[in-house]
Amino acid sequence: MKTLARLAPAPLKDVRIDDAFWAPRLEVNRAVTLPVEYDQCKKTGRLDAMTWAPGRKPVPHIFWDSDVAKWIEAAAYSLTTHPDKALQRKVDRAIDILASGQGPEGYLNCYYRLIEPDKRWTNLRDRHELYCAGHLMEAAVAYYQGTGKRKLLDVMCRYADYIDSVFGPRRGQKRGYPGHEEIELALVRLYRATGRSRYLALAEFFVDERGRRPHYFDREARARGEDPKRYHFGGYEYNQSHRPVRQQSEAVGHAVRACYLYAGLADVAGETGDRDLLAACRRLWKNVTERRMYVHAGIGPAGRNEGFTRDYDLPNETAYAETCAAIALVFFAHRMLQIERDARYADVIERALYNGVISGVSYDGKTFFYGNPLAAHPAGRTGGEHYRRSAWFGCACCPTNLARLLASLGQYVCSSGRNQAWVHLYVGGSAVVNVGSQTVTLRTRTRYPWDGRVRITVRPERPGQFTLALRIPGWCRRAALRVNGKAVGTEAITSKGYAKIKRPWSPGDRVELNLPMPVERIEAHPKVRQNRGRVALQRGPVVYCLEEVDNGPALRGIVLPRSAKLTARTDRRLFGGAVAIAGKALRLDAGDWAGGLYRPAASRTRPAAIKAIPYFLWANRSPGEMLVWIRER
Amino acid sequence: MKTLARLAPAPLKDVRIDDAFWAPRLEVNRAVTLPVEYDQCKKTGRLDAMTWAPGRKPVPHIFWDSDVAKWIEAAAYSLTTHPDKALQRKVDRAIDILASGQGPEGYLNCYYRLIEPDKRWTNLRDRHELYCAGHLMEAAVAYYQGTGKRKLLDVMCRYADYIDSVFGPRRGQKRGYPGHEEIELALVRLYRATGRSRYLALAEFFVDERGRRPHYFDREARARGEDPKRYHFGGYEYNQSHRPVRQQSEAVGHAVRACYLYAGLADVAGETGDRDLLAACRRLWKNVTERRMYVHAGIGPAGRNEGFTRDYDLPNETAYAETCAAIALVFFAHRMLQIERDARYADVIERALYNGVISGVSYDGKTFFYGNPLAAHPAGRTGGEHYRRSAWFGCACCPTNLARLLASLGQYVCSSGRNQAWVHLYVGGSAVVNVGSQTVTLRTRTRYPWDGRVRITVRPERPGQFTLALRIPGWCRRAALRVNGKAVGTEAITSKGYAKIKRPWSPGDRVELNLPMPVERIEAHPKVRQNRGRVALQRGPVVYCLEEVDNGPALRGIVLPRSAKLTARTDRRLFGGAVAIAGKALRLDAGDWAGGLYRPAASRTRPAAIKAIPYFLWANRSPGEMLVWIRER
Repeated sequence: MKTLARLAPAPLKDVRIDDAFWAPRLEVNRAVTLPVEYDQCKKTGRLDAMTWAPGRKPVPHIFWDSDVAKWIEAAAYSLTTHPDKALQRKVDRAIDILASGQGPEGYLNCYYRLIEPDKRWTNLRDRHELYCAGHLMEAAVAYYQGTGKRKLLDVMCRYADYIDSVFGPRRGQKRGYPGHEEIELALVRLYRATGRSRYLALAEFFVDERGRRPHYFDREARARGEDPKRYHFGGYEYNQSHRPVRQQSEAVGHAVRACYLYAGLADVAGETGDRDLLAACRRLWKNVTERRMYVHAGIGPAGRNEGFTRDYDLPNETAYAETCAAIALVFFAHRMLQIERDARYADVIERALYNGVISGVSYDGKTFFYGNPLAAHPAGRTGGEHYRRSAWFGCACCPTNLARLLASLGQYVCSSGRNQAWVHLYVGGSAVVNVGSQTVTLRTRTRYPWDGRVRITVRPERPGQFTLALRIPGWCRRAALRVNGKAVGTEAITSKGYAKIKRPWSPGDRVELNLPMPVERIEAHPKVRQNRGRVALQRGPVVYCLEEVDNGPALRGIVLPRSAKLTARTDRRLFGGAVAIAGKALRLDAGDWAGGLYRPAASRTRPAAIKAIPYFLWANRSPGEMLVWIRER
Repeated sequence: MKTLARLAPAPLKDVRIDDAFWAPRLEVNRAVTLPVEYDQCKKTGRLDAMTWAPGRKPVPHIFWDSDVAKWIEAAAYSLTTHPDKALQRKVDRAIDILASGQGPEGYLNCYYRLIEPDKRWTNLRDRHELYCAGHLMEAAVAYYQGTGKRKLLDVMCRYADYIDSVFGPRRGQKRGYPGHEEIELALVRLYRATGRSRYLALAEFFVDERGRRPHYFDREARARGEDPKRYHFGGYEYNQSHRPVRQQSEAVGHAVRACYLYAGLADVAGETGDRDLLAACRRLWKNVTERRMYVHAGIGPAGRNEGFTRDYDLPNETAYAETCAAIALVFFAHRMLQIERDARYADVIERALYNGVISGVSYDGKTFFYGNPLAAHPAGRTGGEHYRRSAWFGCACCPTNLARLLASLGQYVCSSGRNQAWVHLYVGGSAVVNVGSQTVTLRTRTRYPWDGRVRITVRPERPGQFTLALRIPGWCRRAALRVNGKAVGTEAITSKGYAKIKRPWSPGDRVELNLPMPVERIEAHPKVRQNRGRVALQRGPVVYCLEEVDNGPALRGIVLPRSAKLTARTDRRLFGGAVAIAGKALRLDAGDWAGGLYRPAASRTRPAAIKAIPYFLWANRSPGEMLVWIRER
């Protein structure tokens, strides 16, 4: 077994973010969102679930442990970059309560411990048992790495050891695997944190058992006295167990499950050097991102399975595009990026982060979207009510997922390779990257994503030759590069989307990258029937939308001529200075409409100014219509 | 109690249809569809349900009686205009089997008799018990009126008497009403056929109990030990019992239930002279037809409730638009037309008949649509399979509903009023209408709907003064009228959409009505966001669509300039000579598309010929995409 050569993301603790775009958002995440989520977890009983007593309402739910786990994980990241005794005490208390529920054999799950103690491991297909374990493992690793505190890590190692004793190929063991994937990537993470190879082996086992015949979920259902054919979701595509993972090429079913699985596959492939598994990851990546991804990097158009449908089927108003699914895609992309060193993966991370991920949380950090449609109308899918973010959800996966992603944003910025420093995202701040036998500090100043000029000061501990690899974003058509004021042609040195500057570097060397950001009209693949004859506006990595508050109602009556001039301008009143796009378009004008639903066509167009704002900022002002894909003429 | 003055539809037996459009369709309905449906009812056990024995599969279902009832009703109409001993024997046998299951008290329902004999009347909300009774009453009346045979009528009178003893306001009676309306209109029909006023009173009772508080369905659910709040469909809007019917103004819930109810309200109002109830009918009509009706007269856009959503919410590809719902709208319209004598009602009947109703059956009469979308794509709602008609359905309401409507088409053509003969639909054939103290035979010759020229020969038994009222269709902008060759201005004599020719008529008088049929681009109300910037093609009463078989795939890439010339032409190869529309449009051309889902907009348009065919004929050739609403430029 030989691991695949991979980049190593600069650890969170080594990355400081201080720019005008992300730093305030991360501060809101720390100071508002984390406490809000703590309160919700407390109020709803999640946090104290292990102390639940019969008669108390609400009754612990099968996935409650995962909500607490993701909140702990988010808090752990926050503590990594921003020590806070009070927060740490809260986490310790939550861990104490969780740990109090661990059985002597190591088992740990509030639902099965308290509600159905005799049903443990009887319904892997539907009951999130291994999923909860996975999230707790991630939390344990994050908390240990962020604070050095081992308690949860030890608890979860005991639980993982127990799970490893229950599941496996040996006689008497269960050949099962989770209905909701997550534990695969978590076990690899636990393996990396502890060095214990049995966790990696267990992840491999779960990966390779998946979809085998006879089907585990069939046998398990029959053992429960159920007819497997009456599975609510129909086929096992729903949980990606319709066939062995190595034979999968198409992203199917529940989108979060899918991308958590794919991330786990990439993790296992990276550790085991399994090129067959990596090939499956590549095929699945290609299918997701070239056939089944919205322009805001949301995935999973359908509510019915919270997931994928068909190639090029990307309806806008009914888009489910769960916040968690865009986050899961980031996880998958991040792992593939380290293995493949190809900017296509970072492009998707960026597309998700600046669009379909952060749209999931309000500007004030207090409310959340579960779904992220690309058009909204009061007569639409929410049954006539305006689409608004919610303070919480019965199924509350998204808020804590957002919090943990934002709190860990630093780890997506840079990586170190063999004598290489890689910059994936242009985020103002400083990062310490291991390069060969020394560390290099990269100090970045930029107004990205509002402005494409990026200045990086390179400070190796001592002068030396190495490569600085800078991502040229896929959206950028004419990048300009200067090193210490001298122009460097990017074309010759760019491969797989990274400009690789190999030279002797001295402390204080200055790199200037200019990524021009004209307003672009984007069109979707012609097979995306829902967007035929429509364009989305994009500037840099940011996708724009029209909102009723700026443009009045009936947004679908707006027509944008190909020739219309579009101007980007910083709007000081727009959430601290976001860039808005203004232009002269046309609007359909029906004139007088006397009763009736249908008439001979008589509508005309008239000139009308339009204003577009970044998609991720929508639904932060007055409620109303929203539209990403605009009719073009 | 004073009945409202109403028109009387010319009875089915007095109308003969012999034109080129309907006559062949009615013959297919008689010779193909009725036998096909008989075979399905036989094969699936519906027809012999009363002889079902435990262990036999399939097990009788709660609405099986209604399927058999509608088949009997359809057969009854067919026998009215086309006597057929063999068919009559089949019906008699079916009636004998049904009657064998009638209890001594009069109860008749295969499901409750055989499967849950102890649960009778315990779940009016969900179990279709009164609905099945209603359909059997309609069948009984139709069979009696068509053949003179009384057996089923007597059976159903006994059942109706029993129902009347069970339900009512008196002590010990149930104050319930059906969850699926139908019996209201059926009881009025039974009252008209028998003269027994208790049936009308029972219909009134069901109408007025509906939606009262405390809610019957709540009490009934609690009596079953269920929590009424856990009703699968959420609120009682689903079955229109959310409030008393007299307080309803908005069409809500399941569309078939809704329009069966509204038809029943109109029937009761017509018989009782209840103007308050009639006002509710008018409000509901207005809401349905001015806010919630597709251009093909389909209603009920949503699959989730098989019904209504919000004003102006008319999605095309996901349109449910159940065949039965369009038929139910015809029933409602037909009743309102007789009361209101307003062509708006007949316009909707026509819109439904030539579009969203007959689209429900294939040209060969053998397969059926349950839903009638206005756009279809292989990646669409059917999960990637092409949209095709089916030979039958588990819930098989639509095929027999279509058969009974088509077999009874004659009764929609003309009405008699006080010294008036009314012509609502232009169907070639002859009709005998009572006018004052004599009958008048109207002989109509026309190629309608392909041609708008209509010649009517008027043959009163003896010369006399009366009014011939001819509908000027709402789609027609310049009707021209001649009587015995002499032009008559229509404007002065037209009210509520009917040109009223009051004169002395002699046998052989000739009326020529010319309704020019240019190809029209139709636009929807600007609040129908799904159709903003789109037009539908309509010619006469027929709505057109594009099909992939004529236009290639990617129909959403077609753009129709407002100035493009559109030509209607009879296509001899198109199902016996339907009129197709040809024109020069544009198509989006993406040129080369190298991988990826998104790119800076570069598509152009190129000229492209298009061919549209009548919507009702779609999906009769090669499967593929279909589109009604075409992008306009």
